[in-house]
Amino acid sequence: MADLAGFLPPLTPSGRSALVPSPPWHYSGDLLTVEYRTDPDGVAALLPEGVDLAPEEPGAVALIWADWQSCSDGGEELLDPARSQYKEAFAVVRCSHAGVTYSRCALIWVTTDFAIGRGLHQGYPKKLGSIHMTRPMPHGKAAPRVEAGARFGATLAAYDHRLASARITLTHPSETNGFVNALPMLHNRQVRAIERDGGLVLDELVTMGGYDPDLGQSWAADAELELADSPWDELASVLPVREILGGFYRQVGVSWNGGTTVERRPV
Amino acid sequence: MADLAGFLPPLTPSGRSALVPSPPWHYSGDLLTVEYRTDPDGVAALLPEGVDLAPEEPGAVALIWADWQSCSDGGEELLDPARSQYKEAFAVVRCSHAGVTYSRCALIWVTTDFAIGRGLHQGYPKKLGSIHMTRPMPHGKAAPRVEAGARFGATLAAYDHRLASARITLTHPSETNGFVNALPMLHNRQVRAIERDGGLVLDELVTMGGYDPDLGQSWAADAELELADSPWDELASVLPVREILGGFYRQVGVSWNGGTTVERRPV
Amino acid sequence: MADLAGFLPPLTPSGRSALVPSPPWHYSGDLLTVEYRTDPDGVAALLPEGVDLAPEEPGAVALIWADWQSCSDGGEELLDPARSQYKEAFAVVRCSHAGVTYSRCALIWVTTDFAIGRGLHQGYPKKLGSIHMTRPMPHGKAAPRVEAGARFGATLAAYDHRLASARITLTHPSETNGFVNALPMLHNRQVRAIERDGGLVLDELVTMGGYDPDLGQSWAADAELELADSPWDELASVLPVREILGGFYRQVGVSWNGGTTVERRPV
Amino acid sequence: MADLAGFLPPLTPSGRSALVPSPPWHYSGDLLTVEYRTDPDGVAALLPEGVDLAPEEPGAVALIWADWQSCSDGGEELLDPARSQYKEAFAVVRCSHAGVTYSRCALIWVTTDFAIGRGLHQGYPKKLGSIHMTRPMPHGKAAPRVEAGARFGATLAAYDHRLASARITLTHPSETNGFVNALPMLHNRQVRAIERDGGLVLDELVTMGGYDPDLGQSWAADAELELADSPWDELASVLPVREILGGFYRQVGVSWNGGTTVERRPV
Repeated sequence: MADLAGFLPPLTPSGRSALVPSPPWHYSGDLLTVEYRTDPDGVAALLPEGVDLAPEEPGAVALIWADWQSCSDGGEELLDPARSQYKEAFAVVRCSHAGVTYSRCALIWVTTDFAIGRGLHQGYPKKLGSIHMTRPMPHGKAAPRVEAGARFGATLAAYDHRLASARITLTHPSETNGFVNALPMLHNRQVRAIERDGGLVLDELVTMGGYDPDLGQSWAADAELELADSPWDELASVLPVREILGGFYRQVGVSWNGGTTVERRPV
Repeated sequence: MADLAGFLPPLTPSGRSALVPSPPWHYSGDLLTVEYRTDPDGVAALLPEGVDLAPEEPGAVALIWADWQSCSDGGEELLDPARSQYKEAFAVVRCSHAGVTYSRCALIWVTTDFAIGRGLHQGYPKKLGSIHMTRPMPHGKAAPRVEAGARFGATLAAYDHRLASARITLTHPSETNGFVNALPMLHNRQVRAIERDGGLVLDELVTMGGYDPDLGQSWAADAELELADSPWDELASVLPVREILGGFYRQVGVSWNGGTTVERRPV
Repeated sequence: MADLAGFLPPLTPSGRSALVPSPPWHYSGDLLTVEYRTDPDGVAALLPEGVDLAPEEPGAVALIWADWQSCSDGGEELLDPARSQYKEAFAVVRCSHAGVTYSRCALIWVTTDFAIGRGLHQGYPKKLGSIHMTRPMPHGKAAPRVEAGARFGATLAAYDHRLASARITLTHPSETNGFVNALPMLHNRQVRAIERDGGLVLDELVTMGGYDPDLGQSWAADAELELADSPWDELASVLPVREILGGFYRQVGVSWNGGTTVERRPV
Repeated sequence: MADLAGFLPPLTPSGRSALVPSPPWHYSGDLLTVEYRTDPDGVAALLPEGVDLAPEEPGAVALIWADWQSCSDGGEELLDPARSQYKEAFAVVRCSHAGVTYSRCALIWVTTDFAIGRGLHQGYPKKLGSIHMTRPMPHGKAAPRVEAGARFGATLAAYDHRLASARITLTHPSETNGFVNALPMLHNRQVRAIERDGGLVLDELVTMGGYDPDLGQSWAADAELELADSPWDELASVLPVREILGGFYRQVGVSWNGGTTVERRPV
């Protein structure tokens, strides 16, 4: 009967109401990263069955803030910017599966529903948060330029509890933007049965990465980071900072158009 | 290795970070309903394959606003009320499957991430919106009591576009709170493969209802309703108002603890 | 030339754009109060020149959360409830001027611009905050009734820093709703010259109170209260809790229609 | 007794709680402007007594969106960016007083309380709104560069009603950033007596401008603009678009450190 369209619900004949339009999805944004070492046991405790600690730097964490503009092909969202702008803060760890080392997002907060929808599809465990990052701007005294000595702050709160505050000072151009979030992602996509205690009806491991990277110069930075927990969110307790490795700042563009199923487990 | 807990991601050893705690979920709230007739063809165009128009009143719609407080067993959320309060506005239609008539939520907007998470589990096609409803209060000149002549307003916006505005005036106690949202729900739960154009990897029809209803007196009301579309949301165009049937107002409590899979389609 | 109307800017020929319509202003709402003793020196440090500590209980503080609906005559705001609903959290102290003991709002946060506008007129030092309070509701398991044993939580955050969290448990009906916020208010209204370091061009002490009170039963409560500071807001440091006196809960209505100038100082 | 500090209330011994720190205030931001002609009678109807239409282009209006970062000396706000970032949308007209032609802000919406506080001091008739502007970014497909052909959108809503939507396409570098907002501002600062119908207790005309401008290249643009009213805000009805003059885009820095009283009227 109906011919319903839409990449994610709600589906309608036009597809225009969908929480998220069909990929490819295009992103432009600013990335502020703080890398640190936590206890490898803490990382291990966040990995699902069948996924192991990375053989090297198993306790490395990247806490990353991103200030994004995003759109689908055609870019219609960009001209109603409430539909295209959002921020996110996320904790990435390293892990190993079937002999391959991956990056993995363990915790993530975003500011919009369409970002939640994309994360749902990609296996990111997204929640809403209130997220702020200093913006570089080319003029005036109220914004850093992207240059040595520039200072940037970044904050994360959820349910009116401050969970993270970072401050970085750029030191010098860097060949990398860090090593923790530099690999393909390995994520779970699991769905519980609607029946109470009915078990899983979908249980997948998926991997993905972006394409068409358009990368600005990465900058290394000195970094400070404070983490906290709330009754509803664990960050300081599950990934405590043992040793700051450093900070990074980079402006980037990237696109995304699907991933690959690594394993579909029987349910 | 890890023993991960949590009803929905993110999963952690404690389960405390989960977007939503395990059911049962308990709700207390105020419901403002406007029922109207639209074109049955419009309803049919929103039903998935295998689901048909209801044999009676196939074009009936209920647009419902709810001002909720919710919690899991123990009620810890109630004392950090940012974690328990939210509002929603949703359009319910009637439909038929395998000879049974159901209610079905075609469009829904909510104000919090945990409400999105619960909707995801239950097959509600949730998006975020900005939602307001007049509150009844027992004292003063700035609030109606729940009584004949009381006037209530309700509004919905998303991405800064106003999508719906309703005004009702209570007329008399009613034996029902309307007929459109009075049946078990029939929802789809579908998940796309992570591969671009990879088809569905989960395709279910599920049904559910609440338990332990604690229902206040329902009131019938005269109702006005204005709907609009935006570039990102269809409401006026897909479910236009042809004839207002009436309004309802009721304060209620209800709990939820899982549903039943009606059909799992091969993928 | 123009005949501009409006109680507060922006002024237009119709007056309809004004941040706040003309008084009288009507309020219906829920009040959650925690009274405590702080150091009288701390209270004194928040009083302007010419205003002294109260002769009795000079160190008493009431931290009050209010969940309001408000409107002007006619009540048009109530049917577009985004324009009528707001919350506030405020710290009240006692003080003395010219032999009269007053209440005085030392710090206050609200959730809307029209509440800021009214406070500006009335001498309340308003800022925006994110404020939540448990709502009593008549049905279901996710809300207290207003009765012995009922538990309510209340929270305040500003710029994503949590500043206050309170929890109260109702114990018994009370003849009062506390004593700290029970007197006419004594507030300053001061305006600086537009010239840098130009001094004050308006310097008033004003007093005011409500009329047409429509008061529900007040309840006494056991209370817990945690305060904090942020870089932008002082609460824990300027009014620290030395001894909890008790909590109160009351649903009320009240109206406001102007105050009285106590003193206009030369500028 | 107390030695209270703070540029605006709340005042405390440290001054740290003040809604706004002392000037100078520094700004870095992006300005998107649409200039158009409305009926000069409409402009005249928004001017206060003693202020007349400009002798040339009396019906010109600039509707300006600004995406700001701001701070006081020392820049502490920049590292807790929730305290430094905000957006505004405002309508500027031209006017004449005592033989001098000025710019004047007739209507303005901002996104934060500290911006309201500064506007209060400066005579801007500020209200809160939800404001979005496309950001230029240096990388990726989801953001324009500042160059010919670049497209930017800008939107304004208040109380969940969309009030304005603009779209511009940059055409060529321009020597000016428009002419309507190019003059010193002429604003009223008026305070009503606390007594009901007590008249004004402060009535000033003030003028001001920025200093230390750090101006990027201005771009001319083709522009589209849609305006609307809501029950609480007049824009389309008081300043309707009769003829679009053009659009502008510029990234700027500027500082502010006080203004000059033009006239203090007896009260």
